Amino acid sequence: MQLRVKAWLEQDGRAVFGEGLLELLRKVEELGSLSAAANSMSMSYREAWGRVRDAEQRLDRPLLIRHAGGRGGGGARLTEFASGLLTRFARIEDELHQIAAQLAQRHLAGI
Amino acid sequence: MQLRVKAWLEQDGRAVFGEGLLELLRKVEELGSLSAAANSMSMSYREAWGRVRDAEQRLDRPLLIRHAGGRGGGGARLTEFASGLLTRFARIEDELHQIAAQLAQRHLAGI
Repeated sequence: MQLRVKAWLEQDGRAVFGEGLLELLRKVEELGSLSAAANSMSMSYREAWGRVRDAEQRLDRPLLIRHAGGRGGGGARLTEFASGLLTRFARIEDELHQIAAQLAQRHLAGI
Repeated sequence: MQLRVKAWLEQDGRAVFGEGLLELLRKVEELGSLSAAANSMSMSYREAWGRVRDAEQRLDRPLLIRHAGGRGGGGARLTEFASGLLTRFARIEDELHQIAAQLAQRHLAGI
């Protein structure tokens, strides 16, 4: 039997940040564009944009800085706030998964 | 911002035990009957029975011992396996929530 854990952040009782957004923002950071990030996750641009916009509205803070034009038709990068949130949440997830492995070993041995 | 965590158990990639079943089995233990347990959780007997049966099938082990007849029309109690699973999962959840509070304090301070 395997122990699975999931973490997310809430503000005023509403989910504002989780694994999906973490992955999407990481891809934006890596690829420099929301459409490229969406594409790499087999997600439509509309879907990706919707997720970011919903999170921005709930957090009442921008997550992406869009810049238009130039070769490749513009792009996006993370705000300082988004970058900080990504780092913090990634650390939380890493530690949580390590701890879950220990808990599983301690409590699920032999079943 | 609040950190939320959720834990569940999987077997062969399928969810077999989580918070819902934990609560339901605890109520069966407390009330001695699946219909009373379902009722206390504002759940239909059909729904409760379905959840237990699904989990039993996935685990390939019985979780409840049903006994018919007598005053109140029979009842149910946990198998030793279900009781052990409940205890282990409850400990895992307790520890996980304590750890989540520490992680939140360490990583989410000031945002």
